[in-house]
Amino acid sequence: MATENIAFIGLGNMGKPMALNLVKGGKKVTAYDLNAQAVKELEAAGGKGVKSVSEAVAQADVVVTMLPSSPHVQEVYLGGGKLLASAKKGALLIDSSTIAPDVAKQVAKEAQAKGFDMVDAPVSGGVGGAQAGTLTFIVGGSEALFEKAKPILSLMGKNIFHAGANGAGQVAKICNNMLLAIHMIGTSEAINLGLANGMDPKKLSEIISKSSGRNWSVETYNPCPGVMENVPSSRGYEGGFAVELMAKDLGLAIEAALSTKTATPLGGLATSLYRMHAEQGASRLDFSSILRFLKKA
Amino acid sequence: MATENIAFIGLGNMGKPMALNLVKGGKKVTAYDLNAQAVKELEAAGGKGVKSVSEAVAQADVVVTMLPSSPHVQEVYLGGGKLLASAKKGALLIDSSTIAPDVAKQVAKEAQAKGFDMVDAPVSGGVGGAQAGTLTFIVGGSEALFEKAKPILSLMGKNIFHAGANGAGQVAKICNNMLLAIHMIGTSEAINLGLANGMDPKKLSEIISKSSGRNWSVETYNPCPGVMENVPSSRGYEGGFAVELMAKDLGLAIEAALSTKTATPLGGLATSLYRMHAEQGASRLDFSSILRFLKKA
Amino acid sequence: MATENIAFIGLGNMGKPMALNLVKGGKKVTAYDLNAQAVKELEAAGGKGVKSVSEAVAQADVVVTMLPSSPHVQEVYLGGGKLLASAKKGALLIDSSTIAPDVAKQVAKEAQAKGFDMVDAPVSGGVGGAQAGTLTFIVGGSEALFEKAKPILSLMGKNIFHAGANGAGQVAKICNNMLLAIHMIGTSEAINLGLANGMDPKKLSEIISKSSGRNWSVETYNPCPGVMENVPSSRGYEGGFAVELMAKDLGLAIEAALSTKTATPLGGLATSLYRMHAEQGASRLDFSSILRFLKKA
Amino acid sequence: MATENIAFIGLGNMGKPMALNLVKGGKKVTAYDLNAQAVKELEAAGGKGVKSVSEAVAQADVVVTMLPSSPHVQEVYLGGGKLLASAKKGALLIDSSTIAPDVAKQVAKEAQAKGFDMVDAPVSGGVGGAQAGTLTFIVGGSEALFEKAKPILSLMGKNIFHAGANGAGQVAKICNNMLLAIHMIGTSEAINLGLANGMDPKKLSEIISKSSGRNWSVETYNPCPGVMENVPSSRGYEGGFAVELMAKDLGLAIEAALSTKTATPLGGLATSLYRMHAEQGASRLDFSSILRFLKKA
Repeated sequence: MATENIAFIGLGNMGKPMALNLVKGGKKVTAYDLNAQAVKELEAAGGKGVKSVSEAVAQADVVVTMLPSSPHVQEVYLGGGKLLASAKKGALLIDSSTIAPDVAKQVAKEAQAKGFDMVDAPVSGGVGGAQAGTLTFIVGGSEALFEKAKPILSLMGKNIFHAGANGAGQVAKICNNMLLAIHMIGTSEAINLGLANGMDPKKLSEIISKSSGRNWSVETYNPCPGVMENVPSSRGYEGGFAVELMAKDLGLAIEAALSTKTATPLGGLATSLYRMHAEQGASRLDFSSILRFLKKA
Repeated sequence: MATENIAFIGLGNMGKPMALNLVKGGKKVTAYDLNAQAVKELEAAGGKGVKSVSEAVAQADVVVTMLPSSPHVQEVYLGGGKLLASAKKGALLIDSSTIAPDVAKQVAKEAQAKGFDMVDAPVSGGVGGAQAGTLTFIVGGSEALFEKAKPILSLMGKNIFHAGANGAGQVAKICNNMLLAIHMIGTSEAINLGLANGMDPKKLSEIISKSSGRNWSVETYNPCPGVMENVPSSRGYEGGFAVELMAKDLGLAIEAALSTKTATPLGGLATSLYRMHAEQGASRLDFSSILRFLKKA
Repeated sequence: MATENIAFIGLGNMGKPMALNLVKGGKKVTAYDLNAQAVKELEAAGGKGVKSVSEAVAQADVVVTMLPSSPHVQEVYLGGGKLLASAKKGALLIDSSTIAPDVAKQVAKEAQAKGFDMVDAPVSGGVGGAQAGTLTFIVGGSEALFEKAKPILSLMGKNIFHAGANGAGQVAKICNNMLLAIHMIGTSEAINLGLANGMDPKKLSEIISKSSGRNWSVETYNPCPGVMENVPSSRGYEGGFAVELMAKDLGLAIEAALSTKTATPLGGLATSLYRMHAEQGASRLDFSSILRFLKKA
Repeated sequence: MATENIAFIGLGNMGKPMALNLVKGGKKVTAYDLNAQAVKELEAAGGKGVKSVSEAVAQADVVVTMLPSSPHVQEVYLGGGKLLASAKKGALLIDSSTIAPDVAKQVAKEAQAKGFDMVDAPVSGGVGGAQAGTLTFIVGGSEALFEKAKPILSLMGKNIFHAGANGAGQVAKICNNMLLAIHMIGTSEAINLGLANGMDPKKLSEIISKSSGRNWSVETYNPCPGVMENVPSSRGYEGGFAVELMAKDLGLAIEAALSTKTATPLGGLATSLYRMHAEQGASRLDFSSILRFLKKA
């Protein structure tokens, strides 16, 4: 593949290491972010910083955006950011933000109306995955666009899934994360119940991990301090995936449920529990700290 | 190991195939059940039927009980069944019923006071596992008793776990099943939300199965008809693990939570949802049919 | 007060009887609705029907809108309906639709920017209250506008509350209805639990009505058939406030909760329970039928 | 009515003022409690303290018990307390403890088998009501026994309800308190949602109190500090009905639900929320402090 010019919009905790991996992969990266320090770091690594979204995208073959929420995406693409108004004809637009599926569809529709190729490609894997280039991308868009985006995404991630049409990347992401929240709370309840009834949490986790209760939380990201090394629960729930971000993703899931008249009893309860946990002071802790919210250590 | 005399009490859907596997394993099995037909089947296979618990256990080196609920276990061991009053000195007692941990501890305590060895060894794996001899046993009792019970249990099952002291087998079982109920409902919600937002359930299940939302339900026992072959959802939710039995196990979990002042927000909600689903007519369907309760097909 | 010209937009189940009460109150009412039959009924009573929103509002001193949801209100006021573009200078705009508080604020802001007075004035009391002219209005807007709107609202309702600034009418309405949903389900659970434990539901309802559990549902709108006369539960849950409408109002509450990062554990669960109840076929039944969803009669 | 000899067992926070009111009412009260100080206070007021349950009940025409939980009641009546073995022939036994309906029925049955009249008569109204003699009693037992107990209960309370047969007093009490917990949390959610959306909580509470959301919590025991005087929320949630006691009553409700296969989705969730709130350090605060658990002040 020829070396493309890539514009990267949004050099936050996730975006910056992703952009750096594109530079490392040999791409010519032109980036924009309000944070001058982040731009400087990218420039030090060989990228180029510019003063506006318009400037960043003007010559780009591929545009990658990594923004905090739906309104930011709307603003950058359709509003004051003027991305759609400024991008090069035929550019491939990749939005890796986690946003409402309806907004993803709307932006993609407007992009296509102006002749752009666009996919939604939200990620999972956290800051660690972004740095290591091992993110998972879940892509919404046509099969052809999926294939077109894949080589770029592969520079930043390891698993690249095709979920379906535009918006499907977002849908799959929020379905996955809602389920993750549910089994993380469920795992915490099960371990807590075992503890209260005299069981060793390590032994209990081992048994569940080999039985029908098994899930990603109990097997790889155990919420109980001391059961596993190198997970947030064993370092005071520092690092990892913040309670506030999980609450945000759950909010997207519930909005998608409301707008499609879908019942999500456990998903809705998980949303309230994470919100309460955040309000009680845990918003920056890893989401596995929900165990602590069930019972004070 | 020398051929022991084994008494088997309770030839129900689970107990009968378990007892048959002991016969197949070369044991001399003397069984008791009110159901004459079940006793006859065991006799046809080489076992022996008797008219009372007392008679069954009188000469047995090992006693296995497989009963529906806590009161039945109390009745058989301590009440009219007179098991503890009739068993041979030094016999090993194995209760494979799924019952309240407190009752398991109480019965074990009385058994030990009378000089018996006793373990709780509840199973998972369903009727299919009982027939195939591939059950999972989760054993509560000393390490020594675990080793003593293992050869017998191995004739009926494949995975034999040691959970801890007496009662721990029951605790681990109900913790596992509570978590199973939670991720089954959560998986159903996620797939349902994906469907409502236009996703292919098979594609969504594949992505989740390789992502952080993964769990036993989505990977091996998918609740959405058509996603997997050979699971209850693809045969009208027939067979499998009945809603009523899941509701029973959840009830045991909630009782254990109440008696230890433990919060189980998702576990409690799962209990009510399975109870309501049963009341609406689904008590005999497989528990993955909870997807249907979220949204009429 | 001089006879004003009133424009009425939206002659649905609620809007039509409200408009008729304005006619009865001596007002000159010009109405618009897509439903020709409803317009005809208004004309028969002395009102006037027109072919567009613009035409309806052109000469009106007061405009009342009664529309199904947020998008309809946006469309009529700001979009193709051109209400703000067509209304008479200085007209008082009253939106009695139940919609998202954020949308109510946005529309009011645009109305004020164009020199209109505007209040949100959602109602409770149902079709019966609309016909009898005994609705409750909960008004959002300045004190002065509240006083200005009151004489008009008094022709259609009995209790007129001032909740606060623009949008506060909507906020108070959805807070009230969320709480209503919660104590209706709670009341149903309590009665159901009493029944299952052998109590007479009438006796139980009487005791609760005089004790700390008392609430509007148990005292005036008992969900258990046979406890009270003249409530939906005693006529097969026909009439009253439909499950689907309660689900809609709960959706607005949850959206407002998500957008302000507010936890609503019971409100969220009530939302899912009403949604599931609707999906199982009860969407048009009265919302007190949730008792049936707990346990099949 | 002639002056009866009354035995009073259990001079705790509730029992002591209740016994004092019996003394004030002209009854001859003989009391037993492990707490010597409480006994001394009763003696100072004109009662008599004794060293055992047996001694207390030996000459009593009426026995009143006020004990913390089911096991205490079983111990006093059937176990080491020997109440049934020691009481005077034909005595009327009144148990005012809040306990499991099944235990109430069991004890009543054994009492009746020994020729005693027995009713369950749990109370509401708290320590304040006990002191003022304004408690509510909810009585389970025959109509005749209800009439027989009423004059005694009237010395300690104001509202005396007849709920039904033995155990029905307990059933009605726990149904009421489950509903109370639900609308207290619901009211807290509604006020919290209003606050987050800019509403004045006093104004919102007024509107709800006159609308369909109204209930005992919002009208008389508002959980939001500053809305009402003389309620726990306006004195730091001190005094009132402790979170731990509400959690206990909810536990009784859920046990009764499990044993009768009854779904209580909101009741179950309320149970977990109060348990979590207690675990986070609020067990001795008034139960209206659940508002604080939703959002840190």
